[in-house]
Amino acid sequence: MTLAFVAWLATSAQALTQTDPLPSWNNGPTQQAIIAFVRATTDQPSPKFVSPEERIATFDQDGALWVEHPMYTQVVYCRERVKPLAEKRPELKNVEPFKTVLSGDREAIAKLTMPDLEKILVATLSGMTVEQFSAEVKSWLATARRPRWKRPYTELVYQPMLELLSYLRANGYKTYIVTGGGQDFVRVYAEQVYGIPPEQVVGTAGGIKYGYDKNGRPILTKEPKLLLNDNNAGKPEGIHLVIGRRPYSAFGNSTGDRQMLEYTGAGDGARLMMLVLHDDAKREYAYGPAQGLPDTKVGAFTQALYDEAKNKGWIVISMKDDWKRIFTFEE
Amino acid sequence: MTLAFVAWLATSAQALTQTDPLPSWNNGPTQQAIIAFVRATTDQPSPKFVSPEERIATFDQDGALWVEHPMYTQVVYCRERVKPLAEKRPELKNVEPFKTVLSGDREAIAKLTMPDLEKILVATLSGMTVEQFSAEVKSWLATARRPRWKRPYTELVYQPMLELLSYLRANGYKTYIVTGGGQDFVRVYAEQVYGIPPEQVVGTAGGIKYGYDKNGRPILTKEPKLLLNDNNAGKPEGIHLVIGRRPYSAFGNSTGDRQMLEYTGAGDGARLMMLVLHDDAKREYAYGPAQGLPDTKVGAFTQALYDEAKNKGWIVISMKDDWKRIFTFEE
Repeated sequence: MTLAFVAWLATSAQALTQTDPLPSWNNGPTQQAIIAFVRATTDQPSPKFVSPEERIATFDQDGALWVEHPMYTQVVYCRERVKPLAEKRPELKNVEPFKTVLSGDREAIAKLTMPDLEKILVATLSGMTVEQFSAEVKSWLATARRPRWKRPYTELVYQPMLELLSYLRANGYKTYIVTGGGQDFVRVYAEQVYGIPPEQVVGTAGGIKYGYDKNGRPILTKEPKLLLNDNNAGKPEGIHLVIGRRPYSAFGNSTGDRQMLEYTGAGDGARLMMLVLHDDAKREYAYGPAQGLPDTKVGAFTQALYDEAKNKGWIVISMKDDWKRIFTFEE
Repeated sequence: MTLAFVAWLATSAQALTQTDPLPSWNNGPTQQAIIAFVRATTDQPSPKFVSPEERIATFDQDGALWVEHPMYTQVVYCRERVKPLAEKRPELKNVEPFKTVLSGDREAIAKLTMPDLEKILVATLSGMTVEQFSAEVKSWLATARRPRWKRPYTELVYQPMLELLSYLRANGYKTYIVTGGGQDFVRVYAEQVYGIPPEQVVGTAGGIKYGYDKNGRPILTKEPKLLLNDNNAGKPEGIHLVIGRRPYSAFGNSTGDRQMLEYTGAGDGARLMMLVLHDDAKREYAYGPAQGLPDTKVGAFTQALYDEAKNKGWIVISMKDDWKRIFTFEE
C-alpha cells in the first residue's frame, strides 16, 4: 500500500520534470536509443520489462565518464605522490625510478619502463592504511589541476554522462563504475562526483591485510599484491565477484571494455551497450586507430573494437555529434 | 521536496506499525540494546546520528542466521553433489575420496581428511559456469532436508534474526551477509530467504574465468582457485573489498567473526556488535567451550571470544533467554 503510493509519487514527480532527461545530448539516434532502452525495460506492459532489483548499469570511468587523455589521472597521481613520499622516506631520493621522477626531467620520465612504473605504483598505492590512502588522494585532488583546462581533475567530467547516470537512476537502475583504475582511488570521489557510493565501485584492487596498530586498534593495510585486475576479461570477472548479476547496460570507450560489453550483450531481453568515441579534437581530444588517428595507448579504440561494435549492435557515441556540451562548467 | 515527503511518509507508516518491531525477541536488555542503537543512529537530533548512506550492517550466516549444527549446509551440499557428479563423470567412482563418499559408509566418511574434503569442494564447486552452479544449488535446495526437522535447509532460519534484518532495513540500514561460506552458494537463495540481494552477499570466493563457449557465447567459469577466504581476518578484508565502508553493526556467533566485530567496534560513534550463543539444546542446539560444552569445531564459540565480548561491550544473544521463538514455522 505505502510502497504503491511511493511508486506513484515517484512516477508523478518524474512525469512533471521529464521534458528532456538528457539536455546535453543532441537529438538523434544515440539519444533515442537510450530513451527507448529505458522505456522498454521499465514500462510495466513492455515484454522486455526488467524488475527493479535486476536493473544494473556499469560504466567504465577513464575516457567514458571523465577525461583520460593524455594520461590517466591515477598515473599522474602516482607520479606526483613521489615527492611527498620521498620527504617521508628520504632513502628513495637516490633510488631509481624515484630519482628520475624527482628530477622533473620530462624526457627522462617519459622513458620510464613498465617495471619502473610498477615500482612507483607499489610505493604510492600500498603500505599505508586504507584511511591514510584515502586522505592522501583527497588532499591531492584538492589542489591538482588538468593542465589544458587548469581545473581540478574531478571537474573534467562529461556532463552528458552525468545526465545519463541520473536518468538511469531515476528509472530504478543501480549505477556501478567498473574501472581499470584503482578501486580505492575512485571510491574517494565517486560519491561526490558521480553520485556513486563506494560499494558500487568495482576496480583494480590490491590485497588488504587486517592487523593491529601499536595501540591494538584494528587496521586495514594496503598490500603490494594484485587481487583483481579489472581490465579486459577482468571486468566481467569483477562484476561477478562484486555484483553477482549480469548488467543490462554497459558503457565504455576502449578495448579494455570489450569483454564487459560482450558479457552484458549476451544476456536475454533488451540490453544497451555503448562506446564513447573521442572524435572531438576541438572541445576535448580525437584519438584512436578506429578513426585512422594515432594509437595513444591510453584508451585505445581499435578498428577491431569498432567492427565488433557494428557487428553486435553496440552504439558508438560521437562526442562531436552526439554531445551538445561536454563539461559541466561550459555554459 | 519529493524526497522529504517520501521520508515523512516512511516515518509515518513506520510509526503506525511500530508497536513491536521485534516480536520474537523477549523483552530485556538484548532487545533494548538493538532498539537503543537504531534510535541513536537514526533519530535526527541524536549526537550519534548516522547518515543513511553510511548505514551498513553485516551478518555472518552459519549459526547466526540459520542452523549450522551438526554440519554446515554447504558441506552437506558438496557431499551430496558427489553422486550426480559421478553420474556425469563415471571415472570418479573408483577414485578416492569420491569412492568413499559414494559408498555411503558413514564411519568412513566421517574419517575423511581436510585434503579429502578439499578435493570434494573443488570437484563440486568449480569447473562449471556460474549459471550451471546456481541451477545445481537451486535444484538441491528444492529437495534436501535437515534430518532433525525434516524441513528444507532454507526454513531452518532464525525468525528473530529475520525480524532484526527487516527492522534494520526499515531504518535505512543496508544489510549484508559476510559469510565464510561460498559467496556464489549463498547468493542463490539469499534474496528469497533473507531479502538480501546478490550484490550484498560477501563470502568465500573462488576465481572466475571469462571465456567463450563453442558457439562463441561469453561465459564465466568457476575456477579451482581461492580468491577470498572470507573467515577470520578475511571478513574485514572482504568487507573493504566489496563494500568499502566500515559497518556500524555486525552479528556473528563464532571465532570466525571476531575480526569483523573488532573492526566494526573500532569505528567512531554508536556501534552494535552481537554474538549468537547456541545455548538452547531443546529448541535448537547447545555447543561450544564458552559454556563448558564440547567444541564441535562447527561454529566454535571459545572462552577467549566470550571474554573479548565482555571486555569490549559486545552483546551475547542467548537463544534460550532472548528468543521467544526460533523458527518461522513454529507457532
